[in-house]
Amino acid sequence: MNTNIDVNQMGLCQMLRAIDEGVCTTEALINACFDRIDARELEVGAWQVQRSREEYLAAYRAQQDFYDASLLKGLPLGVKDIIDTEEMLTEMGSPIHAGRQPIEDASCVALLRAAGGIVLGKTVTTEFAYFKPGKTKNPADLSRTPGGSSSGSAAAIADDMVPMALGSQTAASVIRPAAYCGAIGYVGSRGEFSLRGGQPLAQSLDSLGLFARQIEDVQLLRAILLRQPASIAPASAQLPSCVLLCRGESVGEVSPEMQVATEKAVVLLQAQGVKVIELDAGERIKEMVTHHINIMAWEVCRNLVMESFHKEQLSGPLAALIEQGLSMDRATYVASLAAVESGREWLWSFAPEADAILTPAAPGIAPLGHEATGAPHMSRPWQAMGLPVINVPGMVDDNGVPLGLQLVGKARQDDTLLTYASGLMPLFV
Amino acid sequence: MNTNIDVNQMGLCQMLRAIDEGVCTTEALINACFDRIDARELEVGAWQVQRSREEYLAAYRAQQDFYDASLLKGLPLGVKDIIDTEEMLTEMGSPIHAGRQPIEDASCVALLRAAGGIVLGKTVTTEFAYFKPGKTKNPADLSRTPGGSSSGSAAAIADDMVPMALGSQTAASVIRPAAYCGAIGYVGSRGEFSLRGGQPLAQSLDSLGLFARQIEDVQLLRAILLRQPASIAPASAQLPSCVLLCRGESVGEVSPEMQVATEKAVVLLQAQGVKVIELDAGERIKEMVTHHINIMAWEVCRNLVMESFHKEQLSGPLAALIEQGLSMDRATYVASLAAVESGREWLWSFAPEADAILTPAAPGIAPLGHEATGAPHMSRPWQAMGLPVINVPGMVDDNGVPLGLQLVGKARQDDTLLTYASGLMPLFV
Repeated sequence: MNTNIDVNQMGLCQMLRAIDEGVCTTEALINACFDRIDARELEVGAWQVQRSREEYLAAYRAQQDFYDASLLKGLPLGVKDIIDTEEMLTEMGSPIHAGRQPIEDASCVALLRAAGGIVLGKTVTTEFAYFKPGKTKNPADLSRTPGGSSSGSAAAIADDMVPMALGSQTAASVIRPAAYCGAIGYVGSRGEFSLRGGQPLAQSLDSLGLFARQIEDVQLLRAILLRQPASIAPASAQLPSCVLLCRGESVGEVSPEMQVATEKAVVLLQAQGVKVIELDAGERIKEMVTHHINIMAWEVCRNLVMESFHKEQLSGPLAALIEQGLSMDRATYVASLAAVESGREWLWSFAPEADAILTPAAPGIAPLGHEATGAPHMSRPWQAMGLPVINVPGMVDDNGVPLGLQLVGKARQDDTLLTYASGLMPLFV
Repeated sequence: MNTNIDVNQMGLCQMLRAIDEGVCTTEALINACFDRIDARELEVGAWQVQRSREEYLAAYRAQQDFYDASLLKGLPLGVKDIIDTEEMLTEMGSPIHAGRQPIEDASCVALLRAAGGIVLGKTVTTEFAYFKPGKTKNPADLSRTPGGSSSGSAAAIADDMVPMALGSQTAASVIRPAAYCGAIGYVGSRGEFSLRGGQPLAQSLDSLGLFARQIEDVQLLRAILLRQPASIAPASAQLPSCVLLCRGESVGEVSPEMQVATEKAVVLLQAQGVKVIELDAGERIKEMVTHHINIMAWEVCRNLVMESFHKEQLSGPLAALIEQGLSMDRATYVASLAAVESGREWLWSFAPEADAILTPAAPGIAPLGHEATGAPHMSRPWQAMGLPVINVPGMVDDNGVPLGLQLVGKARQDDTLLTYASGLMPLFV
């Protein structure tokens, strides 16, 4: 059996079903993950901290009865390095926290661990989940950024190194790297998951995120994180009957190839009988981008307190964001909060029959180079409104570089959104 | 100079002005706090962990230039023991976390420390800020509960041990102990303050709280926590022109003496020309109590993850809450979230001219005994709606035991609320 190829092709639930059916062993799958990492990590750079194969297998074998009886069987999990882990450093991509060893697992890590996941390592994050990149390269094209801030988690999933990874999004930190790398990335509705032990950046914006290879994997991980009945059986898929189309131009700059991909998606959906309504938003969605920036600037400098006292150890963009927040008038912040809240109602009143919004997940393909992580504006409006979002991969440009489209759901209707994403994804691949 | 009497009578800003004016020294005020603690702590039991006088003075003197130039001058701060402190244990009132030493300060602690506050100690919390009491007794009547969960912070302020203390509220954990002990307790609008490093209980409900002796002290501390210009000059006071009166019976059980206090407050306000409109809410406020419980139960078991795996070390009520959350249907939780959100609009549409809501802060005086912390229902509706609230002390029953009334403001209009509380408080004292 060529386990490398199997892992390349299998999602988490597929792996778990294969174990159940005796098609392959857990150890073979673990080894396949490490084989892939051994072959690719020097180039991709997805990992900040990493267990060795020997340590991993020893941990698995030491509690093999537990793992064999568990839901996740001891399969490997990647954890973004701003999420605390009790047995690995959590350094948040900043020299300020070099060597920082948390005393506890974040609640999301504790739940996945209890379900039988094993933390293979911490994935690279940008500095405090903001802009300054880590070492990660885009596995779809190593000359390009993987996007950020959950750079390592997106790359590890897209490059088939692990079948599940945790991330977080305050602006575009899950959807953008998922779009650039060609992975599934899901951001929960605001407040949906416990963020205990995840380092906060902006309390009105932070959401937990998940990366996986199949939508059913996201559904499984979501169920575990919500302590709901979880199943590895194939999940049902369904197309939305109506989507609201938000063309990139209503949000901000968008590339010609993304315009083509969006148009192609519309044609594919209409061919399936899905009604597509244009979101003729005027300037209001663009204004949400500004409101998001205001909220983020105000809150970041009130969360990164100790860090703000060490500006000489911060990147220029983060120091500037903190300065923006400190000099901001409180009325601006409160007005942006109010605008975002009223936007949540306005958005769906525009087309009450719409099941979800379809819109570019990023302005285009991943930019060349590794000095920046690309523009976040395509995510800011939905993140400001606290809506659940999923990047649906599959589209590519003429050179095969990923182009992501995102599906935005109604607040707290994450399960419905994931069902629609299951219906949509086969059309794009 | 009898520093004990001075401290008994002085709020934080009064102390700071006295230092500025050369009326007394910082060390005299620090010593007065320790004198009071030495005299009373054995009976009151406000402190979980405490610096000794010698340690405190050594810390102060080691950086005296910094403190003398600072806003808070090195005066003592109490920190609820679910808020992380890098130099003191944070045990959350639970044997599960005995000896737990955080690696970092919570952001609120870092900000007050940077402003020149010194953490005198950690104040007693109930188990994970829920129901199971710690050792604290009510300083106004030692035979009674201080209320919870911020029991130690409320008692330390009411008993004049420190001039400022941090707490938190998920149900009634600031307002109830403030009402029972006769302290000012303020709960910020949801999302108002960073909760980084404060242990989360329920993400849709948790708020930071402050305890102090004067409203101007709350205003000062709030400004520091928001990194806004802060002043120790006396703040302006203003009565609301119109209050919405929510009689205790619309929320739940209320004692005859609280009914009398509420009526007395109405008469006092009307005598000042304040318009009082009865909130004729039918059952809707009572329903908010149920929605609050649903939201809390769902979220607590998804935050206290590791703890839920050690049920044998949890109190009966907390284990039951976790059980309730684990067996709850998700639709119930989502419906309660929606009910609460629509309630936020409904509440003020009822009387758009109202500046604030006046309502009992607790069902009555603090109950006798120390096995429980009293009923939280009077706070649940406002907390569920994420509104800023302040307990305005001053009223007492025939035996001099405190009766608290709370003023509830509009979301994110905390500054306005505090101004009204400044106007109101002199009427009650």
